[in-house]
Amino acid sequence: MKFSVTVTLKKDVLDPQGKVVQNTLINMGMSDLKSIRQGKHFEIDVSENDQTVAEKKIDEMCRKLLVNLIIEDYKINKI
Amino acid sequence: MKFSVTVTLKKDVLDPQGKVVQNTLINMGMSDLKSIRQGKHFEIDVSENDQTVAEKKIDEMCRKLLVNLIIEDYKINKI
Repeated sequence: MKFSVTVTLKKDVLDPQGKVVQNTLINMGMSDLKSIRQGKHFEIDVSENDQTVAEKKIDEMCRKLLVNLIIEDYKINKI
Repeated sequence: MKFSVTVTLKKDVLDPQGKVVQNTLINMGMSDLKSIRQGKHFEIDVSENDQTVAEKKIDEMCRKLLVNLIIEDYKINKI
């Protein structure tokens, strides 16, 4: 069973990496750009067949390792 | 108009960062894990109001800066 996890910085957390990308794009002439923020994306494949149990396991992985809950939000989707 | 861009490594490209995460999770006792691959995620806000034009602009940003087309795939979604 495959899941995707998207990890984004919380709204009020500064994103220096995204800022650099934003400035670069503006310097390249993309004047329509209002903002860009960067996050992480994981594609996770687990052998569990029960979706509820699998989602709980993915959630545990996120909380224990993949996500810094102080500054990041995450979203789990089945794919 | 807001879009999300997900950038993933192509299927046959090695993902050492994902491998480290995978080994760590397995060492933490997550024996159900089959595989995990890591990618990038962007949230882009553009001032363009026509969706087709906006998507074309996002696509241009991806090709010119955000994505290494040799080893990466990308997907644009409206949010």
